[in-house]
Amino acid sequence: MQIFLFPLSAFFCLYFLGITAVSAGDGASQAQAMDSVWVAISGALVFMMQAGFAMLESGMARAKNAVNVMMKNYMDLAVGALLFWLVGYGLMFGGNPSGWIGTDHFALAYGDDWSASMLFFQVMFAATAATIVSGAMAERTSFVAYLLGACGIMALIYPVFGSWAWNEHGWLKQMGFIDFAGSTVVHSVGAWCALAGIMVLGPRLGRFGSKGEVHMIPGHNLGLVAMGGFLLWFGWFGFNGGSTLAAGAEIGPILLNTHMAGSAGAVGALLTTLAMRQPVLMAYVVNGSLGGLVAITAGCASMDVPYAVLTGFMGGIVTMFGVWALEKLRLDDVVGAVAVHGFSGVWGTIAAGLFLKGNMFDLNQVIVQLIGVAVAFVWVFLSALLMYGLLARTIGLRVSTMHEQRGLDITEHDEVGYPEFNRDAAYQREHVQQLNRL
Amino acid sequence: MQIFLFPLSAFFCLYFLGITAVSAGDGASQAQAMDSVWVAISGALVFMMQAGFAMLESGMARAKNAVNVMMKNYMDLAVGALLFWLVGYGLMFGGNPSGWIGTDHFALAYGDDWSASMLFFQVMFAATAATIVSGAMAERTSFVAYLLGACGIMALIYPVFGSWAWNEHGWLKQMGFIDFAGSTVVHSVGAWCALAGIMVLGPRLGRFGSKGEVHMIPGHNLGLVAMGGFLLWFGWFGFNGGSTLAAGAEIGPILLNTHMAGSAGAVGALLTTLAMRQPVLMAYVVNGSLGGLVAITAGCASMDVPYAVLTGFMGGIVTMFGVWALEKLRLDDVVGAVAVHGFSGVWGTIAAGLFLKGNMFDLNQVIVQLIGVAVAFVWVFLSALLMYGLLARTIGLRVSTMHEQRGLDITEHDEVGYPEFNRDAAYQREHVQQLNRL
Amino acid sequence: MQIFLFPLSAFFCLYFLGITAVSAGDGASQAQAMDSVWVAISGALVFMMQAGFAMLESGMARAKNAVNVMMKNYMDLAVGALLFWLVGYGLMFGGNPSGWIGTDHFALAYGDDWSASMLFFQVMFAATAATIVSGAMAERTSFVAYLLGACGIMALIYPVFGSWAWNEHGWLKQMGFIDFAGSTVVHSVGAWCALAGIMVLGPRLGRFGSKGEVHMIPGHNLGLVAMGGFLLWFGWFGFNGGSTLAAGAEIGPILLNTHMAGSAGAVGALLTTLAMRQPVLMAYVVNGSLGGLVAITAGCASMDVPYAVLTGFMGGIVTMFGVWALEKLRLDDVVGAVAVHGFSGVWGTIAAGLFLKGNMFDLNQVIVQLIGVAVAFVWVFLSALLMYGLLARTIGLRVSTMHEQRGLDITEHDEVGYPEFNRDAAYQREHVQQLNRL
Repeated sequence: MQIFLFPLSAFFCLYFLGITAVSAGDGASQAQAMDSVWVAISGALVFMMQAGFAMLESGMARAKNAVNVMMKNYMDLAVGALLFWLVGYGLMFGGNPSGWIGTDHFALAYGDDWSASMLFFQVMFAATAATIVSGAMAERTSFVAYLLGACGIMALIYPVFGSWAWNEHGWLKQMGFIDFAGSTVVHSVGAWCALAGIMVLGPRLGRFGSKGEVHMIPGHNLGLVAMGGFLLWFGWFGFNGGSTLAAGAEIGPILLNTHMAGSAGAVGALLTTLAMRQPVLMAYVVNGSLGGLVAITAGCASMDVPYAVLTGFMGGIVTMFGVWALEKLRLDDVVGAVAVHGFSGVWGTIAAGLFLKGNMFDLNQVIVQLIGVAVAFVWVFLSALLMYGLLARTIGLRVSTMHEQRGLDITEHDEVGYPEFNRDAAYQREHVQQLNRL
Repeated sequence: MQIFLFPLSAFFCLYFLGITAVSAGDGASQAQAMDSVWVAISGALVFMMQAGFAMLESGMARAKNAVNVMMKNYMDLAVGALLFWLVGYGLMFGGNPSGWIGTDHFALAYGDDWSASMLFFQVMFAATAATIVSGAMAERTSFVAYLLGACGIMALIYPVFGSWAWNEHGWLKQMGFIDFAGSTVVHSVGAWCALAGIMVLGPRLGRFGSKGEVHMIPGHNLGLVAMGGFLLWFGWFGFNGGSTLAAGAEIGPILLNTHMAGSAGAVGALLTTLAMRQPVLMAYVVNGSLGGLVAITAGCASMDVPYAVLTGFMGGIVTMFGVWALEKLRLDDVVGAVAVHGFSGVWGTIAAGLFLKGNMFDLNQVIVQLIGVAVAFVWVFLSALLMYGLLARTIGLRVSTMHEQRGLDITEHDEVGYPEFNRDAAYQREHVQQLNRL
Repeated sequence: MQIFLFPLSAFFCLYFLGITAVSAGDGASQAQAMDSVWVAISGALVFMMQAGFAMLESGMARAKNAVNVMMKNYMDLAVGALLFWLVGYGLMFGGNPSGWIGTDHFALAYGDDWSASMLFFQVMFAATAATIVSGAMAERTSFVAYLLGACGIMALIYPVFGSWAWNEHGWLKQMGFIDFAGSTVVHSVGAWCALAGIMVLGPRLGRFGSKGEVHMIPGHNLGLVAMGGFLLWFGWFGFNGGSTLAAGAEIGPILLNTHMAGSAGAVGALLTTLAMRQPVLMAYVVNGSLGGLVAITAGCASMDVPYAVLTGFMGGIVTMFGVWALEKLRLDDVVGAVAVHGFSGVWGTIAAGLFLKGNMFDLNQVIVQLIGVAVAFVWVFLSALLMYGLLARTIGLRVSTMHEQRGLDITEHDEVGYPEFNRDAAYQREHVQQLNRL
């Protein structure tokens, strides 16, 4: 285009400086445009994780609770987005002189364009942390109490820990804690809330026999479980990749590590179930892949590929033994969320220290990682225990036995998920509606 | 890299001018590359809205019509894409000296690369407008008549109005009408077609009793409804974000507004149903979020966040009252499309004028918005009424009573959606096939 | 920004050279960042094709095999990713002095960022080739044998042919063979493996009567089929668009061609079934669109739009006649994969030669295309026949008759897909579990 500028002359030189000045500005704004594109797409992909959770959790529940699980996912996303905008984002990413809490950027009205991109992306992350809980506590938690709990997570529990680990001036961040995309900050935080929730709630009716025997309660739609797994995996490319917060060639290694770890997690779970002579259930394989993805989340940007494979593989194994251990402890986690997001998240956060490229097996780093993991557990578990305990003692956290037996779809939403396939449920619908109107 | 160029000399200065000339050219082509990437991805996301509509509408229909609804969505996309390429795009975006209609760019053979990007993106928009209709008219409209109607929308009704509002030289555009991504141009256009369609068709058998009572006809698969809601929301990030037609940092605020309005719409619908002491149905919440998304579509690029929240929140409320009002008028819209896309689209188009950043509450702007809204209604509703009326009087728009009772899957496609779960339908299949062969 | 630089002076000139040197470097790294973003997103989209295949294939199978089909898709993705990283990528894209096989880049530990992007993208392609097989061989193939077969495809059959056609120094590539995104390299390769597989396996029980009559075995969930079709179409935008391996304005024409061909394929299949007085089944329309997409895959970057429409339209027709022809030959392809990916892939590869922009109807080019197509068939079909033959003669490829009758979900995974809708299956589950434990 501007090749005609080539013949040098004083005039052209002058002219040309003006051009280049503009073009340099262009370079900066192009970089910003590119970053915006990448963060926008990544945020949209993370949004799809919400759909993935909804499918996965609904599929693992019984048909009589299919609507309720979906609704919890749909509404925590909505309520949580507004709350995180109003409060959470400021607490987490606002100016943080003490290192313990952000103090501005609440209810961002506009700010500059880039703040909006950041907030869009971070809203999706917060929703992910909150929604992890819904699956663990499924089939027996009251809709309203669940939503209030999700509000507590997105407005307080999640952003406070986030301000320690991810805020520029957070004390854990300053200490050198590595958690690139949130094995601990997002996944374990969600999982420890879930753990507190299921401890307060107690197991579903009939889940554990009086003599200690464990009863499997099969999910009603395994196609939804597989679909959920695929959507979560898909969304993870935005979750890990977008955490660069910038377009750049380092996206390639991050996505490769992510994909390899997810794959290795599925294989790890498969081999574990075979070795333990258990049937290879779909939920196991899907949870194994998710365990691998959770595990690589902390270190995806700072590991070589073989270590990512190892991290994911171990994540799959940790997940399987975690699921079985919780069962032994008579803790009823409907979808295995505590094992997938909690135990695998702990492993992944440690692995991010162990396999840190250029500084492998540095004991100091591993200790920092352990501190981060422990602090997350203490803060999140205790505050969630308090929150769910308060909810249980006030408005009630668990639905009545009759409602649990009939299913939350009819009793809380006055509808059923599949009125034509589930004749008994459809019939019961009329019945319950009459009761409700009495 | 080129830091060795630093020592200044006449020679280097010369050399360097050459470099910069190239680099400036690169800057332009890089910008174009980036725009192409963004528009490509956005188009793909808008494509997924088609899947979202298919899921949502099929889930809200009865099992006996599940295939028919999906097929209508799948085929209007295909037929419409070819027609919009042949005719619609030229009418809408071609050279438009009169301001009333485009006159070239039909059946684009190649043009330059950027035209192809534009056409790819706009084809997806046209399909969205057309497919809004399928849900409203579900469960009683003949497959062939429906497809012919979709052709009319994509080849004529939609692009003609589009040429007024979105063509560079369109008369509404010239007047200052603001509809960034199409609250009116896409969503209301689809909705007014749907309104004309359901008025010509009449309600489904059994929807309204002889004494004026309203009978709910529950959708057969609420999991599909939730999935549809998630996919539509996901696609909306491309719909609104891609309407910049360029990569840039302003994508951030647009997506943030979009997400906040969708969230607020869901909350608005939830609170409305609670306030009206209605059960919180999944369809209400999903439609509320879609109402919020429709509402923000016009003004997502020109509002501050708090106003986007307000616009979305009101969109959710407008949607709920719209659904109930249509029921009162004995108009049978199976999925609530007229309320979601029409009423909320009107509200959103007005809101884009009311809350215009830098020029809030300017009466002149609001009047222009109202003119746009009114013109859209008059043109679209009347031409669609004529079209569906002609179809009804010629090849027939509504299937026979026997076909409606048996379901359109068996009678129009000779198959059933779930042959193993719906025993009666599967049995009936054999029976109808025999009848068809007589 | 830097407009204040405008007043020329020796000092500024010096300063400014430094700036520009940096900015030129930025230009290069910005281009790389942009390419990474595009390839990352495209890879994620191709990942979703795996979900699409899982849905489509599961929906076309019977409920008793729904889990098994999904599990095969989920696990071939995982196992295959690890294998392709270890072996396949090196064979396909490694240094290739002979033109017949790559010899390095195995188990890439890190390399540079761009290699990671490439590998991420190519892993998704390999998974696509492998998973095409699962649908064709559904409902009767042992889980373990299937997975071993997928390993053979991803580690050997696919990358070897790929090294001929896509490696810089591959002999087919050198000859001028055009297959932009893999009508032959990916789709036909998958399809010829599938063809060998179903020939070794034989048809499902009851598929063909003893007197030559053909029995339709309807899929259990057509909603999943539609969803699968949408997801595959969506993923194809990444499949074809990402094959540029670079961000650029040429993405627009590629995506436009892709979309138009998919649309034309659906229309072609619709018209074919109408012309043949067959019912318009959902599987036909979806397969028609996929046939159109497969066909345009080879030539999407080198055709004008009208030829893309023609290529896709013919792809839809080829698919339909292919499906019927295989039925006549008593080959039981559950989902029509051989016709969609094989026959349509052949047509598309020839069309890429016939309609090559700037060199239309060049006989030499068409001959090169035919050579590529023939070589692919010979190599892939024979090696797959050998592989599946060996599997059949060793660990066994087909499950026992009893297992096939009961369904692979119960017998291979000890669970059922829909325990609450499929009462007989759920009941049988208890029964089979008891048998398995004896």
